[in-house]
Amino acid sequence: MSTLTPIDLTKQLQWRYATKVFDQSKKIPAQTWTAIEQSLILTPSSFGLQPWKFVVVTNDAVKAKLRAASWNQSQVTDCSHHVVLTAKRELNSNDITRLIASTAQQRGITVESLAAYQGMMSGFQSKGYMTTEWAAKQCYIALGQLMAVCAVLGVDACPMEGFDPVQVDEILGLRAEGYSTAVCCSLGYRAASDKYAHLAKVRYSNGEVVRHV
Amino acid sequence: MSTLTPIDLTKQLQWRYATKVFDQSKKIPAQTWTAIEQSLILTPSSFGLQPWKFVVVTNDAVKAKLRAASWNQSQVTDCSHHVVLTAKRELNSNDITRLIASTAQQRGITVESLAAYQGMMSGFQSKGYMTTEWAAKQCYIALGQLMAVCAVLGVDACPMEGFDPVQVDEILGLRAEGYSTAVCCSLGYRAASDKYAHLAKVRYSNGEVVRHV
Repeated sequence: MSTLTPIDLTKQLQWRYATKVFDQSKKIPAQTWTAIEQSLILTPSSFGLQPWKFVVVTNDAVKAKLRAASWNQSQVTDCSHHVVLTAKRELNSNDITRLIASTAQQRGITVESLAAYQGMMSGFQSKGYMTTEWAAKQCYIALGQLMAVCAVLGVDACPMEGFDPVQVDEILGLRAEGYSTAVCCSLGYRAASDKYAHLAKVRYSNGEVVRHV
Repeated sequence: MSTLTPIDLTKQLQWRYATKVFDQSKKIPAQTWTAIEQSLILTPSSFGLQPWKFVVVTNDAVKAKLRAASWNQSQVTDCSHHVVLTAKRELNSNDITRLIASTAQQRGITVESLAAYQGMMSGFQSKGYMTTEWAAKQCYIALGQLMAVCAVLGVDACPMEGFDPVQVDEILGLRAEGYSTAVCCSLGYRAASDKYAHLAKVRYSNGEVVRHV
């Protein structure tokens, strides 16, 4: 096991904040980026369906377009990597068949041995639960894991719901691929000038947020 | 900084899996639990609104009731701590006023100095964006952070969408408090008998899930 101590973990979660000013000159090193990208791919999802695609934007021209579609927030252009978390718009029996085939292949077992698993997913899908909104929720799991992972690696992040999803979809050509933007996150390193880094973190108290039963 | 190396982080994310059989005799130690609970409280949320309450269930009788409402999944009773992530059903101007007051108090500044922040939230709220579904999405950020945090601490987790939300709300008396269940997660330690621990993790390839722009 290669774990972090509880105290060190809490320190890192206290260290993080929604970064408002990124240092444009600092880029995420390759090995760190590989771990972050791997964490996106490894994000748990309901049934393991992975109803998402992650668009990683480092191209300056595309970043500029996305900034214009994101309330002109400077984080989009000044960060190292801007991640757009996109949800599959429609989930049907093909998605289930694809996952079953992938599972059989990766585990070296037969498709037939996964019939119960497939049936469970099909039941859920045919009841209309696998909506775009449901896929978007899975993207929020990825966002949560992404921000925690960045904190643990010492990378700064700014999650973002403030953008025009139709424009972002258009800039990245997402609709044609069957996806739409759920949420975004700029990643990189805080600028020394970011005054938000020094503000007290605001949270409700344990007693207000947690109930023990 | 008390970070984890990229390689160790990836190891821990590979180590985790949706635990199907928990070892009933193993409980999460107090110091570790404190860090996990703190990570729930520290979860980032849109505007910092924290539209949630986390119910931590360790009581055996309540766990048994929740198991019955959760497709009889043994994880609910056999885990150390079962966490129910609940979303605030209605978000109105009181929630905004409350956050502004808390921010002013925790940062030692005036409520008046936060007028622009308050105005931005009020605009968003009055346009009807702060729905129960939106609050539920914020709970999925907490779920993502929770699972990543557990992986990094070496604690096992089983996320769960398979439950009857109305029954869970009723068992925990959530509706009366203005909340409803978004998603659940059982936490503890895997049993040696859990064959799922040894299966290959199934994920689509980098090329299928990540696009670089």
